[in-house]
Amino acid sequence: MNSEELYRQIKRKKSFLCVGLDSDPALFPQLLRHVQYPIFEFNKAIIAATAKYAVAYKPNLAFYEAEGNQGLHQLEMTVDFLRKNYPDIFIIADAKRSDIGNTAKRYARAFFEKMNFDAVTIAPYMGYDSVGPFLEYKGKWSVILALTSNKSAADFELSNMQTGEPLYKRVITEAMKWGDKDNIMFVVGATRPEKLAQIREYCPDNFFLVPGVGAQGGSVDEVAKYGLNSKCGLLVNSSRGIIFADNSERYAVTAGEKAAELASQMARYL
Amino acid sequence: MNSEELYRQIKRKKSFLCVGLDSDPALFPQLLRHVQYPIFEFNKAIIAATAKYAVAYKPNLAFYEAEGNQGLHQLEMTVDFLRKNYPDIFIIADAKRSDIGNTAKRYARAFFEKMNFDAVTIAPYMGYDSVGPFLEYKGKWSVILALTSNKSAADFELSNMQTGEPLYKRVITEAMKWGDKDNIMFVVGATRPEKLAQIREYCPDNFFLVPGVGAQGGSVDEVAKYGLNSKCGLLVNSSRGIIFADNSERYAVTAGEKAAELASQMARYL
Repeated sequence: MNSEELYRQIKRKKSFLCVGLDSDPALFPQLLRHVQYPIFEFNKAIIAATAKYAVAYKPNLAFYEAEGNQGLHQLEMTVDFLRKNYPDIFIIADAKRSDIGNTAKRYARAFFEKMNFDAVTIAPYMGYDSVGPFLEYKGKWSVILALTSNKSAADFELSNMQTGEPLYKRVITEAMKWGDKDNIMFVVGATRPEKLAQIREYCPDNFFLVPGVGAQGGSVDEVAKYGLNSKCGLLVNSSRGIIFADNSERYAVTAGEKAAELASQMARYL
Repeated sequence: MNSEELYRQIKRKKSFLCVGLDSDPALFPQLLRHVQYPIFEFNKAIIAATAKYAVAYKPNLAFYEAEGNQGLHQLEMTVDFLRKNYPDIFIIADAKRSDIGNTAKRYARAFFEKMNFDAVTIAPYMGYDSVGPFLEYKGKWSVILALTSNKSAADFELSNMQTGEPLYKRVITEAMKWGDKDNIMFVVGATRPEKLAQIREYCPDNFFLVPGVGAQGGSVDEVAKYGLNSKCGLLVNSSRGIIFADNSERYAVTAGEKAAELASQMARYL
């Protein structure tokens, strides 16, 4: 999928919502405790309830790996389910991978061939080597961590380089040379909206994947105000605020309501 | 395992060799093409042939994830096999993970509880949040990327900060505040031995995990010369140089010979 196709989907659904499938079985409602594939059943119900309001889903690999090979199996089932039933959906593997060339190649194969993801999040510490192999897949995306939503982003990302620019800006400037608006996105947290405006200035065309709305305190309005470009250029993610808004047996219905709420806030900007 | 126990094992075996299990089925000898668990069979044979000469094994997750849930299953089988047959071996998940607190917690659970690894490699870009949850496990280790062996380490790791120090030094200095020599190691590539000496100076006590010997061009002698401390303080990794030295049916025998060679180079320094 290229950026134009993603934008078309955004306009059609009047939403730039990404639903984070941080599907932690410890937080599941009771009724899922004894089924054979609890993560998959949970995801299916969440997807069915939210797909009208979302253009993207983002399973975070940690929650699947924590369940061992059974977790990874249910991740594969989830991606297959999305592909079959919602062929237009953009699917992001939130894996934050980073490794040298020959290894990055294997990760690219895992996420783009073995599983049919559209995009993978990548930690940029090791430089170009860790991104290049992902960029060889046409129509697939590298989502590079720039300024993350967590508190300790201050430890390194916000530190100034000798040139006076912070590390996250350096990462963005370098990464813009590696690819273009059709294969590179940046992760920019919603928790620092004033930075979002700056980042949009020196990076006008790329999509931003914006976590941190909801549980982490960011707001759709601020993100839209500072981050939108003429082709939207935003995917705003909410995970816990949607999927764990309700842990009763009505969990999917509530998730749908929460997604609809966010989408209606987004529609005003499209 | 703490640093003293690791050092005891190193003295006993007269080796600080770590064997990298980058077990890529595409490079396996013909005779493994049609068995049910080719990765596990390969690993078992490699381990049996090299365990006398190695104190640590380091499966790189990419090669297992590339095979989907069947790959992860064989990773679990490999760790179980090591634990049962070589209880003293130090096992590192080369995962280079990095994520915010609640997600890092799940990764820690995956690697330390679900699978019984001793250590996990971590990319430090997102700061303390991405390491803290791993440090809560007593006797387990965080192996933090500092100066990696790849060419594009120059993109960010070697860039100078406003303070004049390179980013990798900043990472080391910060991370030394998060833990101690019993739970923090640093990845320092063998491909820049002159830097290794500097890093040892401002980080005298921590273990370094040193990749880049063999296929990537680093040498045991240089690494030992610049990196050793009074308690060894080194785990030198070789992956392809050992496990893929020979792709005939004698692959395990040759792997044993290559491991023995490296160990004999190491013995001189112990």
